Amino acid sequence: MIYFNCDYAEGACLEILEKLNETNFLQLPGYGEDVYSKKAKEKIKKLCESHAADVHFLIGGTQTNMIVISSILKSYQGVISADTGHINVHETGAIEATGHKVLVVPTSDGKLTSEDILKVYEEHYNDPVREHVVQPGMVYLSLPTEGGLLYSKRELESIYETCQKCHLPLYIDGARLGYGLVSPQNDLTLSDVAHLCDVFYIGGGKIGALIGEALVITNSNLQENFRYHMKQKGGLLLKGRLLGIQFDVLFENNLYFNLARHAVDLALELKDAIANSGYSFLYDSPTNQQFPILPNDLTNQLLHKYSFLVWKKIDENFSAVRLVTSWATKREDVLELIKDIENYKK
Amino acid sequence: MIYFNCDYAEGACLEILEKLNETNFLQLPGYGEDVYSKKAKEKIKKLCESHAADVHFLIGGTQTNMIVISSILKSYQGVISADTGHINVHETGAIEATGHKVLVVPTSDGKLTSEDILKVYEEHYNDPVREHVVQPGMVYLSLPTEGGLLYSKRELESIYETCQKCHLPLYIDGARLGYGLVSPQNDLTLSDVAHLCDVFYIGGGKIGALIGEALVITNSNLQENFRYHMKQKGGLLLKGRLLGIQFDVLFENNLYFNLARHAVDLALELKDAIANSGYSFLYDSPTNQQFPILPNDLTNQLLHKYSFLVWKKIDENFSAVRLVTSWATKREDVLELIKDIENYKK
Amino acid sequence: MIYFNCDYAEGACLEILEKLNETNFLQLPGYGEDVYSKKAKEKIKKLCESHAADVHFLIGGTQTNMIVISSILKSYQGVISADTGHINVHETGAIEATGHKVLVVPTSDGKLTSEDILKVYEEHYNDPVREHVVQPGMVYLSLPTEGGLLYSKRELESIYETCQKCHLPLYIDGARLGYGLVSPQNDLTLSDVAHLCDVFYIGGGKIGALIGEALVITNSNLQENFRYHMKQKGGLLLKGRLLGIQFDVLFENNLYFNLARHAVDLALELKDAIANSGYSFLYDSPTNQQFPILPNDLTNQLLHKYSFLVWKKIDENFSAVRLVTSWATKREDVLELIKDIENYKK
Amino acid sequence: MIYFNCDYAEGACLEILEKLNETNFLQLPGYGEDVYSKKAKEKIKKLCESHAADVHFLIGGTQTNMIVISSILKSYQGVISADTGHINVHETGAIEATGHKVLVVPTSDGKLTSEDILKVYEEHYNDPVREHVVQPGMVYLSLPTEGGLLYSKRELESIYETCQKCHLPLYIDGARLGYGLVSPQNDLTLSDVAHLCDVFYIGGGKIGALIGEALVITNSNLQENFRYHMKQKGGLLLKGRLLGIQFDVLFENNLYFNLARHAVDLALELKDAIANSGYSFLYDSPTNQQFPILPNDLTNQLLHKYSFLVWKKIDENFSAVRLVTSWATKREDVLELIKDIENYKK
Repeated sequence: MIYFNCDYAEGACLEILEKLNETNFLQLPGYGEDVYSKKAKEKIKKLCESHAADVHFLIGGTQTNMIVISSILKSYQGVISADTGHINVHETGAIEATGHKVLVVPTSDGKLTSEDILKVYEEHYNDPVREHVVQPGMVYLSLPTEGGLLYSKRELESIYETCQKCHLPLYIDGARLGYGLVSPQNDLTLSDVAHLCDVFYIGGGKIGALIGEALVITNSNLQENFRYHMKQKGGLLLKGRLLGIQFDVLFENNLYFNLARHAVDLALELKDAIANSGYSFLYDSPTNQQFPILPNDLTNQLLHKYSFLVWKKIDENFSAVRLVTSWATKREDVLELIKDIENYKK
Repeated sequence: MIYFNCDYAEGACLEILEKLNETNFLQLPGYGEDVYSKKAKEKIKKLCESHAADVHFLIGGTQTNMIVISSILKSYQGVISADTGHINVHETGAIEATGHKVLVVPTSDGKLTSEDILKVYEEHYNDPVREHVVQPGMVYLSLPTEGGLLYSKRELESIYETCQKCHLPLYIDGARLGYGLVSPQNDLTLSDVAHLCDVFYIGGGKIGALIGEALVITNSNLQENFRYHMKQKGGLLLKGRLLGIQFDVLFENNLYFNLARHAVDLALELKDAIANSGYSFLYDSPTNQQFPILPNDLTNQLLHKYSFLVWKKIDENFSAVRLVTSWATKREDVLELIKDIENYKK
Repeated sequence: MIYFNCDYAEGACLEILEKLNETNFLQLPGYGEDVYSKKAKEKIKKLCESHAADVHFLIGGTQTNMIVISSILKSYQGVISADTGHINVHETGAIEATGHKVLVVPTSDGKLTSEDILKVYEEHYNDPVREHVVQPGMVYLSLPTEGGLLYSKRELESIYETCQKCHLPLYIDGARLGYGLVSPQNDLTLSDVAHLCDVFYIGGGKIGALIGEALVITNSNLQENFRYHMKQKGGLLLKGRLLGIQFDVLFENNLYFNLARHAVDLALELKDAIANSGYSFLYDSPTNQQFPILPNDLTNQLLHKYSFLVWKKIDENFSAVRLVTSWATKREDVLELIKDIENYKK
Repeated sequence: MIYFNCDYAEGACLEILEKLNETNFLQLPGYGEDVYSKKAKEKIKKLCESHAADVHFLIGGTQTNMIVISSILKSYQGVISADTGHINVHETGAIEATGHKVLVVPTSDGKLTSEDILKVYEEHYNDPVREHVVQPGMVYLSLPTEGGLLYSKRELESIYETCQKCHLPLYIDGARLGYGLVSPQNDLTLSDVAHLCDVFYIGGGKIGALIGEALVITNSNLQENFRYHMKQKGGLLLKGRLLGIQFDVLFENNLYFNLARHAVDLALELKDAIANSGYSFLYDSPTNQQFPILPNDLTNQLLHKYSFLVWKKIDENFSAVRLVTSWATKREDVLELIKDIENYKK
């Protein structure tokens, strides 16, 4: 079985593994106070050109989302999100469990717009009995989106301008941020991202780390006492070195971006080949997740050899599937998949 | 200014006022342990033909909804509701503040169907990674709906059958239950309602009481330790007599239904006259809230003399307005409003 | 049976009852926007000499406590309280249900001191890993305490000075505030109380109202969007007039204080007589609750005729009991109780 | 600097490190569905002689405690704990953040007794207005305690019998369980522990793992839908293999117990030497944490060379310190510390 079903099927990239081996018997303080965590934080702040930022390492996406969002919102506030947002659909109500409503915006492609945000804001403040309604308190978006799409620099600037005008902190879920930043279609740098939101995270678990996400809080108003929030929600890791060491390695010599580029290059090679075979796509994704619409016959045939998700039924004969490449995907596996798809066409 | 903007503009009906005066200096135990609360509970259980039911008196709708729903759901569960449900739009996230997601079902008219419920249920249990998604844990509906519509006995039977099949307790928000039960279009008795759900409340505050809702828990599995929930959420009233006395009066000699009938009769008289004047309606409501679509000119003219809500813009020239009658509405005021609408037509 | 078991056995004082009757058919807006609520708020602000204060009316003590405390604390903070504090022992975990720990201070008599507060504060900030511990975020005290004791002006000044130095908002639970303010031993005015804390409430339900507490938020930092908190927790009453009218009456012509004085005068008459009969007291209370330590024989004899609580076992032969007078207590009943106690001595 | 300040200063034991290296490029499903997690669970169930148990792997102690406790309690219930319990003092209110009060029992040595539990239970159920008070819903204890003490088999049997009689599930926090089980003073097997409580966890992070705790739910009533709780609270790890592989290794060839024994042997060697030097101890700990009471002079001298915590001031001249050994502690370091203590005596 060849895996195209996710970007977290393997352990860690070799460089991380080596560093974990190498540092294993060093005696280091716990809870993220070790020297590797400190070095990794400095590297990230430098890359973000945000020297006053706070960086924290957390264990997973749901944990990061629930800690960040509950740390920002007042109890009567909710978080604006696209209907397809991970916090809305795939986290078992983790946000609501901290007491907050997800204020859902319907979208066609999973991307929020400046207008969407303004509309929610104005509807609230134009309501004469607005204290009967959840107040919008912040904005959440994913970059790339669940469907692998990007926000252009201009789009993100427009969104952030609206957020600032409306006093709504903007939080970017970057579970797959690396795969977005290296896309040929992307025009954002890591520093741009850092300066066009108030807080965001750089996903590690899906891009080469064994575990871990790096949270960057650039808005100083959101930094105070953040470690209390982490501890209270179970997010202060005993051996914080495990996270610090990994991000220290990932942000040495561009490793993080090189790992991501490997995946995106293969995904786009696959995309081109599928398009050339005459198939269309659910989303026109420029990142490591591809959503071709394939005949069910072909899909069923492929599923004997490859592992991947059937994403969405399109009609009686066609369904969109999700094919994911990762930092660890082998080019030979991609080429074999391409061949099998092309052969079906004949 | 003549009020058609709500059904809670006055204090209490005279019978309640008299009883409060009459009993004022009796020394009674607090927290709902008084004899009037006990008598009122017995009357309600008898009318519901549910002798094993538990009845509790609460202070308002939001409080009742948040206590009931949080008492039923497990922490990873959510409550299914129509998109227009009061808990979803007008309670400042009270349900989420207790940790639970509202699982929203889009509707055209605010009415849930048996199919809606089944669909949410099946989508959840067909999901191979369903522990990543909020589990549906109960169903919430309003009778009448926010738009004044009713569920027929057959509709409610079908819904309840589905709920039972799916092990989803059904909770009916009866903030205006009386206005629904006396409607000529209604074919449900209070006992039917009690037997076609697991828990419901009979609204008092909008039908003649100074304050208060009567919660009826018919499903014995949901009764245990309910007073703990009430106390913890601030819902155990010091002088519980205030609630008990009112419901004791309301359920003597059909008073509750007579008060409601007065309102609905006037609302339907108004509805007929408006229809005869050639206007259509946003909802075809058979209860005490009417939603005629009027020309903006007429609306603006009426607003000088009458207080009511402009509910929804329809197009450049027309908007739906909400006209509400109550147990205290005077027929002469309704006739005057009718005349003013008819005169505009000329 | 003659009741000395609480101060909420009757309905409302006559003046309130009359006003409710008189205003019953006025059409007024809901949710506390009526003219009576506005007038009552102005009267309270004037008496408090706090014109920039916000006043809100709520339904009960537990509700008020949970809304105020959860509106002030950040999610990782707790509220400092004496071990006997009502929020710690008698509210079914209402504070914890909003996510916050009660930071308990052991006391001998239920009174917090400036030193207690400073100690909790310093222990926290001296802890090198303080993010592993709940941060003190505010201070709660009752005036009078659960045992009927007062804080002198000097004590309260000292406490408030410490609170301000530690940036800990001070919240005073005044469920029985009136009974404290009229005590001959008291040297605080209502205005003093308002200026020696950040937020407090004036209890109505135990001093002549049918229902209701008046919350006064003097610290402007704590005022923002408070009605959202009220609505979300079920504390925004449909017919807010019910609360506004009552407080409008209570603060007309010193009624509130006159009602309280009646109770305290009788309580102290009772106290003197019991002391003269040779009994001691659990607390030396100068307010409407008295805690004499009586022989069990006498207690059992009295319980045939009077209703009151046996508060605490002292030894094999003696227990402290709680005798409560109220605005509605009859002097003849107190005299009869005195006689029965004196007769036992013979 | 030589570390005696904790048992988590190093990474993982070599056997774990090797297995992580060896399995790194295997493609495995996420979220704990991998074969290593399954194998590890089977091993643990076998060792526990509890074949119907559910085993889950979690990331840390606070996370485990908050997920387990909030999954068991009803919203009006609290958890009984010794005053020194980790959940009460060192988790930033994580339990309260899930809505529940910690019902604190004062203890002299951090150990709960059967009588303590029964007392809390009876006080609650004897209270005539018990719905005003948090209901005890479960019992929490640590084995070993925060002070390194053990419960004998007879003590634990007595506690569990009381818990069952009172219908209070018993949860054992085993963050350092291994260090307890291998103590010469211990008479409990892992299987005994599993059969004398309803749910417990076997700590990995402090006994040789890089990260992770193994939760064992033996009471089938507490097993349902537990993964929903894990996901909602951020506790379902993306690459669950990381946890599964480690516990698979730890429970192969008694490794877990051998690692623990190494630490306890050294701790007891240290204890004996200190006792022979004439010092007493704060707790008479038979496990890997020792709390000798040393002269401040000696302590200050040692702190130049060794890292450890000053635990508690005893008087002007003496303080208790905490010396912790671990699976990774070197005997030569212990011998050096002993020599330095003995030399001070001369």
